[in-house]
Amino acid sequence: MGSQLVNTLEREDPCRLQALREFYSGKRVVITGGMGFIGSNLAIALVELGAHVLIIDSMIPEYGGNTFNIEPIRARVKVNISDVRDRTSLNYLLQGQDLLFNLAGTLSHVDSMRDPFTDLEINCVSQLAILESCRLYNPHIKIVFAGTRGQYGRTSGKPVAEDTPMQPVDVNGINNVAGEAYHLLYNDVYGIRACSLRMTNTFGPRHQMRHPRQGVLNWFIRQLIDGEKIRLYGTGTQIRDINYVADVVEALLLAMSDERTNGEAFNLGGEALSLRQFVELAIEVNGGGEYELVPFPPEAKIIEPGDYVADYSKFHKLTGWKPRVSVREGIRRTLEYYRTYKHWYWGEHPAGVPPTPFENLPFGA
Amino acid sequence: MGSQLVNTLEREDPCRLQALREFYSGKRVVITGGMGFIGSNLAIALVELGAHVLIIDSMIPEYGGNTFNIEPIRARVKVNISDVRDRTSLNYLLQGQDLLFNLAGTLSHVDSMRDPFTDLEINCVSQLAILESCRLYNPHIKIVFAGTRGQYGRTSGKPVAEDTPMQPVDVNGINNVAGEAYHLLYNDVYGIRACSLRMTNTFGPRHQMRHPRQGVLNWFIRQLIDGEKIRLYGTGTQIRDINYVADVVEALLLAMSDERTNGEAFNLGGEALSLRQFVELAIEVNGGGEYELVPFPPEAKIIEPGDYVADYSKFHKLTGWKPRVSVREGIRRTLEYYRTYKHWYWGEHPAGVPPTPFENLPFGA
Repeated sequence: MGSQLVNTLEREDPCRLQALREFYSGKRVVITGGMGFIGSNLAIALVELGAHVLIIDSMIPEYGGNTFNIEPIRARVKVNISDVRDRTSLNYLLQGQDLLFNLAGTLSHVDSMRDPFTDLEINCVSQLAILESCRLYNPHIKIVFAGTRGQYGRTSGKPVAEDTPMQPVDVNGINNVAGEAYHLLYNDVYGIRACSLRMTNTFGPRHQMRHPRQGVLNWFIRQLIDGEKIRLYGTGTQIRDINYVADVVEALLLAMSDERTNGEAFNLGGEALSLRQFVELAIEVNGGGEYELVPFPPEAKIIEPGDYVADYSKFHKLTGWKPRVSVREGIRRTLEYYRTYKHWYWGEHPAGVPPTPFENLPFGA
Repeated sequence: MGSQLVNTLEREDPCRLQALREFYSGKRVVITGGMGFIGSNLAIALVELGAHVLIIDSMIPEYGGNTFNIEPIRARVKVNISDVRDRTSLNYLLQGQDLLFNLAGTLSHVDSMRDPFTDLEINCVSQLAILESCRLYNPHIKIVFAGTRGQYGRTSGKPVAEDTPMQPVDVNGINNVAGEAYHLLYNDVYGIRACSLRMTNTFGPRHQMRHPRQGVLNWFIRQLIDGEKIRLYGTGTQIRDINYVADVVEALLLAMSDERTNGEAFNLGGEALSLRQFVELAIEVNGGGEYELVPFPPEAKIIEPGDYVADYSKFHKLTGWKPRVSVREGIRRTLEYYRTYKHWYWGEHPAGVPPTPFENLPFGA
């Protein structure tokens, strides 16, 4: 239940682990969206590295927050339930902090088309509010922003480098372009150190499992565990570039701890597989399962971004980062996690909301 | 005082004028920002082409709106004072309209850094609101959006084509990237026909003359008329690509009337001159005047976008558009206009607000 990344580094790269401990030990770190998928995995690693972690999360039911996600560290983090759209709270909470992992944001392509204003408020207005708050009250903070491949929109299928023109195919992508750009601008103009990691499809433990709108890879895992036939749209040959969550956590930690990332955006990336290849691999690792091809629903087709292969050489050259966990191994770990903790994510508890009493959270601890 | 564009086309290109008349005659046309610089010049041309024009303008004092701008057509247009941030009014006003020239927006680089939220509300939130309004209440409308060279940020000084990566250097540029992207997205996803013209430095009659924050070229003209020494920042060798407003009006009319522009963004462009060359030319045309070089104020330096030369061949190839009015001739006409109507723009009336009684506007006419 501890940090997979820290365990892996202990075995494979103790020098890197040592460097990360030296950097993070005693640091005051905020994670917006810290109850969510990537945020909670990051929080667990940070606590094990000796950081003082403050999680900010809105716990909006449809999004990724789940109090069970931070079960391994619940006595060792502060949690503040608030929305990044709440400017006054942010102005208070960001004061005196050293580092900000700015992961709060909506991810759903479909939701952004159904309710574009909410997407705009969270991904543009709130990002600007966070930066203004830092400018006014904490200009010495460093920020790592969670960008997304959705910023690029449709690409040719060839590896995409960071200087590729961005032509998003949904409102979420457009807003993330702006959200990232504010960060890099505030770095350049006001010296508020910030960088962006443009993440690709990430899967692994602690992803919400109640609906597929924030990522299909984990949804396939749920369908396998439930013994359901997996449904792939179209021919299933759409290429996705896939990362396991522990590798993304390492990338976030490296980006934050390296001054040379300031003002820059970097792609992450891992194994480029078709969704069908991912599903076939998952069925193999699972030792069973089925899938079927179904026609694209029209609303999914029109914002389907097509094949995507990341060129992550810019980040690799700077930091040495590359994925450590194969998709196969990631699937094995993900199946194991959700087999064990399934009832905290879906099934027994309506809408998957865990019954953890709110009072038990270490508020102000 | 009538439309310079229409006068020019009568002499130089009667076939184009005929085509424009056929397209616009009887059309119901909305112009957001229609009391401003480009909007009012466009409104005058549209009225002369036989369109039924509805001007929507917020008349925010610091922006470009001036009731004197529509003096030549005041009995022949409808004017509705409202802000594009007012969603309910837009939902009503856009119903039943055929065409929308969507020109309302902030232009000031400096203002967008001082008050980034207002810039975001006007250039992102309101643009999305306009598009949602069209989607819900008038999906058959066509929209031309006013983009800007500021979307590109710093460029190499070589001619910039539309597929150049956009790296804005101020909040205004970031927000305009998003505002344009929403339009092209709604074209692609919902079939709401829209295109964007990325405008460069435009000068000419009807630009506000109270401060230089929305464009320096007209400010130089004011300084000449006032007999003041023109102040150029740095060496004055910054290259700007310059258009006269009548040519921009023609480009807007062509973009709207051509179905092949749907879903596309196009650069406009004209003569690439250094600011110093522009000023020297203006002094020559004026028959007198002086300038001096002064150091960049720090807040101007950091968002100075550097040299910019537009490649407008994409729009030229599609529509045949190219500038008809030289910078020299444009300066002559601009000097003449403001010499005659100076007191409506600055000087006698505090803050340049014209004393036209609001009641005289042909509301609901």
